This record gives sequence, structure tokens and C-alpha cells, in this order.
Amino acid sequence: MDLNICVLPGDGIGPEIIEQAVVVLEKVCEKFGHKLSLDEAQIGGVAIDAHNTPLPQATIDKCLASDAVLMGAIGGPKWDKIDKSIRPERGLLGIRKALGLYANLRPAKLWDELKDASFLKDSVIGDGLDIMVVRELIGGIYFGEPRGEGVDENGERYAYNTMVYKESEVKRIVKLAFEIARKRGSKLHSVEKANVLDVSQLWNEVAEEVSKDYSDVDYHTMYVDNCAMQLVRNPGQFDTIVTGNLFGDIISDEASMITGSIGMLPSASIGDGKVSLFEPIHGSAPDITGTGKANPLATILSVSMMLRYSFDLDAEADLIEATVAKVLAEGYRTADIMEDGKECLSCSEMGALVASKL
Amino acid sequence: MDLNICVLPGDGIGPEIIEQAVVVLEKVCEKFGHKLSLDEAQIGGVAIDAHNTPLPQATIDKCLASDAVLMGAIGGPKWDKIDKSIRPERGLLGIRKALGLYANLRPAKLWDELKDASFLKDSVIGDGLDIMVVRELIGGIYFGEPRGEGVDENGERYAYNTMVYKESEVKRIVKLAFEIARKRGSKLHSVEKANVLDVSQLWNEVAEEVSKDYSDVDYHTMYVDNCAMQLVRNPGQFDTIVTGNLFGDIISDEASMITGSIGMLPSASIGDGKVSLFEPIHGSAPDITGTGKANPLATILSVSMMLRYSFDLDAEADLIEATVAKVLAEGYRTADIMEDGKECLSCSEMGALVASKL
Ligand SMILES: [Mg+2]
Ligand SMILES: [Mg+2]
Repeated sequence: MDLNICVLPGDGIGPEIIEQAVVVLEKVCEKFGHKLSLDEAQIGGVAIDAHNTPLPQATIDKCLASDAVLMGAIGGPKWDKIDKSIRPERGLLGIRKALGLYANLRPAKLWDELKDASFLKDSVIGDGLDIMVVRELIGGIYFGEPRGEGVDENGERYAYNTMVYKESEVKRIVKLAFEIARKRGSKLHSVEKANVLDVSQLWNEVAEEVSKDYSDVDYHTMYVDNCAMQLVRNPGQFDTIVTGNLFGDIISDEASMITGSIGMLPSASIGDGKVSLFEPIHGSAPDITGTGKANPLATILSVSMMLRYSFDLDAEADLIEATVAKVLAEGYRTADIMEDGKECLSCSEMGALVASKL
Repeated sequence: MDLNICVLPGDGIGPEIIEQAVVVLEKVCEKFGHKLSLDEAQIGGVAIDAHNTPLPQATIDKCLASDAVLMGAIGGPKWDKIDKSIRPERGLLGIRKALGLYANLRPAKLWDELKDASFLKDSVIGDGLDIMVVRELIGGIYFGEPRGEGVDENGERYAYNTMVYKESEVKRIVKLAFEIARKRGSKLHSVEKANVLDVSQLWNEVAEEVSKDYSDVDYHTMYVDNCAMQLVRNPGQFDTIVTGNLFGDIISDEASMITGSIGMLPSASIGDGKVSLFEPIHGSAPDITGTGKANPLATILSVSMMLRYSFDLDAEADLIEATVAKVLAEGYRTADIMEDGKECLSCSEMGALVASKL
């Protein structure tokens, strides 16, 4: 198969982790006989420095011309004070929009070998933790109109945002989540607040309707406040979760954190177009940039997600995940997940090791 | 002092736990020489059965005529199918509104003796956990207008809610939270999503302004998704949290759950009027109603909050809390918090024991 990948290294540790992920990607392609073409473009701070915008048109064009995009991380203190409209994060929002990426897939998986890293007690974790949060990414209250500030009849200031979803927006994300759940544990929780919010009532009606096409998937609804509790109390009850933009932001971050190993977590942003975007959930970590302490595994696992979701290459994706598990089982770690008695590798050593064991 | 208390036992285990809380309240009043007058009124399912409404006018009148309201719990399967407009929970929303209770105080405290109950690892809990979440209760997206459903120009249905706050609403809740923080650990986190939401930007501006009058309180802002993570990662960093209605719903429930002992947690709803409402955060537990398995300690601790917040009777409130700690230290438990080697008491035995040790 031909794989045309656009790589966006970004800022901070972005280039270092991307370099190792590419080493692994090249090795996988070689092993399975795929033809890999790599292109590279700028996003975030580096793009601001070079072009005074976090998302140059050339970057959008290169992404649109590719089959999939692999991103590192963006931002850093250097760009914290610049004008809001050209902040590094705008680059990420912009590319999501340009590619129509309406779904954010956020797996929160606790690797057996890293169970000690979880903040939850062993008795709570039980057999492990393997949750996929499917978050709606370009609708809801983060983008809803009208929004802004006003002054009421008493001369008092107020500010407001609109949480809004239309049927088609709910339908496509819920449908996608059912498809994903079907490939995983066949269980889906739709997280909402329908006892209070009109927008959640519509969400539930649409989700209920979609669920009729997936009678093989165990479908549940759950209020968002209850979900925030259940993730702490009994995370093992969840397989796949689907929810709106704001609730998904909160719930996916909470789910990630209970694993205790943020440096291990990849993500995918996908849409109806052919080009999806894959990136680790951790940030650009300017404090450890250039020290070799960065953990490339989340980016390597993002490559695995890319092979699975953009190219349907499940065997290749499985091999990467199995190799990461093996490397962990053999006692290799990076600084962020280091434990007594294990061997601490640098970013490039870890990348090379995973590639060599594929 | 004269204490005129209106008691609302409600449904399920409500009457059982209220009975024990009243035993303790009577004992405290006797000990400190306060004159206690008790009145009782109906709310929730019992009120629906008797008057076909979850909140009869007589209940509102009695509450308004009192100095403070002590509530048990409401709801149960018996009333799950009835018309939405007269569901038991409407009684609670109604009485909050009638009393102008704009602030919900939700302590999440891990009792030393119950550390094992927490779902978090000992290393995460460290010295313990004592967080007060101050949630705005009658504004924000749960009440914001406009709300509802519509059909767009393409004939597609959509639904929407409005998250809105005006300056005065933010000011009063943030001011109250600063006052509470000052009496506790002098640290306040204002939880919002100002990097995305206009309403949070106004919230922050107002909170920043109020903070100038409280330079003795260590003031921080934090995004709600980060807060959901930090509660799991390092809950010890929090003392007092203030936030809006929706964020507070999620964050206060998550904070409660990490203690692992929902049956121990009281709450207060207060406003600018003189009458506040105090209740345990757990529900009406119809499954154990009448079995004697209910834990009355959250309601007893709600009495403690009532004495502190409605009457400024700190010594009396402290005595109740110290006595609960003592009873736990001596190895007495109820079914929900039972551990090996401890003595399990019934609801009425626990109430009588606390009262006898005051
Ligand atoms: Mg987030
Ligand atoms: Mg709640």
C-alpha cells in the first residue's frame, strides 16, 4: 500500500518524538512492504517564527494532499504573550477545522506493566483499564453561536455561550462511536445531562435512534456528573464513551489521568474526509526539550492508531502495540515512567529499541 | 440562642437518618443551653402522595418561617414514572429557588479512619483530603435562557442551552467562596474554561476583581478539564474551589467520590436570605429503607454545617465533628463503611452513640 504521510513536528519535544515515531513507521512499512512517502510542514510556534501565523496555507495544502497527518506537539513559553489570534493553539484548531475533523478518539489504556503508575488503587483498577473516549470536536458550546458579552437593562454586564447540537452532528459522532465500540468491547456509554439540558435531550433521542442499528452493542446513557464519579469508582465498567465537546474535554482528560501515564497516550482526530490527524495527548514539554528525556511512546502509539484508522492496517497496528508492551515487559522505561529496578532509556534509544524489536 | 428548625424528612431512608440527626441536634442544644423548636413539613414523594405536588405551599411557608432547614432525601422508584413537572426532584429545585439559595457548599473530606475507603492510592492522598467545593446553584446553563429546540433553514432539528452569568451573580458566589476559604486553608481555586468560553472570561474578570479584597487568600484559576485531572492526580493541592453550576455539578461529584465514602458527606445550600438548607449528598436509597442499614453520619454532619453556617455556633459544630471522628476511631461503623475488625451499628445505634458521646 502507498502511505503518504504529512508530518508536523511542531514545538518543544515535538521534533524529537516525531523523529522516533518516524523511525518506527519506516521499519513497519519496510517489514510489511508498504511504500512510505513523507512530507513535512510547520505548525504552531515554529510557523509563527517563520511566517507570522501558526498555520500557513502551505501546511494546510500539504495536509490535504496527504493520506494522514502525524503531529508532535505545539506551543511553549516563547509564544505565550503574543496576540491571541495567532497563538500556537490556533494552529491546531485551524487544522482540525480545515480537515473537518469532528471526532476526537482518546484511548485511556493502562498498560499492565505500568499499573503501579495509576493513581487509583489496585482493587479499583482490577483487570485493567482500556477506555476509548469519542469526543465531538468541532461543535457544542466551544463553537456555538450566539456568544459574547452584553449589558442588560440595569446596565449590568453579562456574558454567554450557546451549547448547541443539530441532529446530523449528533448522528455522525454517535454512529462513529458505535462502529468503534463494535470493534472493541461492544459496549457504549453516551454521556450527557438530559435531566437538565435540552441539548442533551436531543442528543439522547438521536443516539437512541442510531442504537437501533447496533443491537449487538450494549448501549447505555449516563449523566456527565455521574460519569466523572464512575471513572474514579469503577472505571472497568466502561469500554467506549461518546460525548459532546465540553463533556468530552473533561471526561477524556479525567480518564487519561487515572491511568497515571499521560506520556503513553495517543489520540486521533478523524472526520468524513480521507485525512485524519494523529498526535500524542501530552504537550510540548519545553522544560525537557533537547534533554533526551521525552517519551516517544505516545507518538509511536499514534502511528499505530494511524495505521489502524486511516489505512485499516490492523496487523501493522497490532504489531506496534505488542512491541511496546514487550519493551515495557522487558523492563525498559523513559524518565517519566521510570521505576526502581528498570532501565531508563533516552527518547532516541527507546525509538530505536521499539523499531529493532518489531 | 433560639433555633427554629424546619425538618423535611422526605422519602426512602430520609425519615430514618433525620430522626438520628435530630437526636444529636437535641443533645447539642441541651448541652449548650440553646432553645430548639422543631417543625416538620413534606417534600418529594411523600408530598406528591399527600398533595399531588412535590412542594406544597405549606412547606415553603414553614421553611421561610424557620431559621434553617434540615432535609433528608427525596425520590424513589415509586415516583419515577410520573409526570416530569411534579417529579420529586422538582421539590428540591423549587425550595432552593423559593429560599434564593445560590450557593451549594460541598465538602469532600476524607476521614482519617476511613482512608482505606478512598479509591485513590495512599501515596496520592498523602496527608488527607479536605476540599470545599462552592458551586453556583441557581444560574448558569441549567437555568439560562434562551433554551429549547428549533428547526433550521434545512429543516433539521437542533437543540440549545445558554450558559450565562451576569457580574452580580459571579461576584456574590466568588465573594462567599473567598470568605469560606479565609476560614479554612486560605487558598481558593476558581474553576472555569476561559481559554474557550466568553462566560468564563467574564467570570475570571469578576473573580480577579473580588480577589483584591482578599489578598490574604492564595487565589488561583484553573481550567475545568485540568481540575478533573488534578483531583485524581494531586487532590491535596486544593482547599476551596469555586465554580459555576455545571462545572460545580461535575467537580463536586468527582471530589466526593474520591473520598470513597459518600455516606459521610453533608452539604449546605445558602443564599442571601436568612434561611439555608442542609442535607446529606447521598440519595434516598430505597433498597435499604427500613433495614436499619442507613448511615446517619452525613445527616449528623449536615447538622454540624447548619450550626456553623446558619448560627455561627462553631464550638457546637466542632464538637459534632470531633465526636464523629471519635466514634470512627473507636471502631464503630455502619454497613456502607464497614471494614474487617470493626463493629457494625444500625442507623439508630449510630445516632444514639454519637449523641451519647457528645
Ligand atoms: Mg482538555
Ligand atoms: Mg451531580
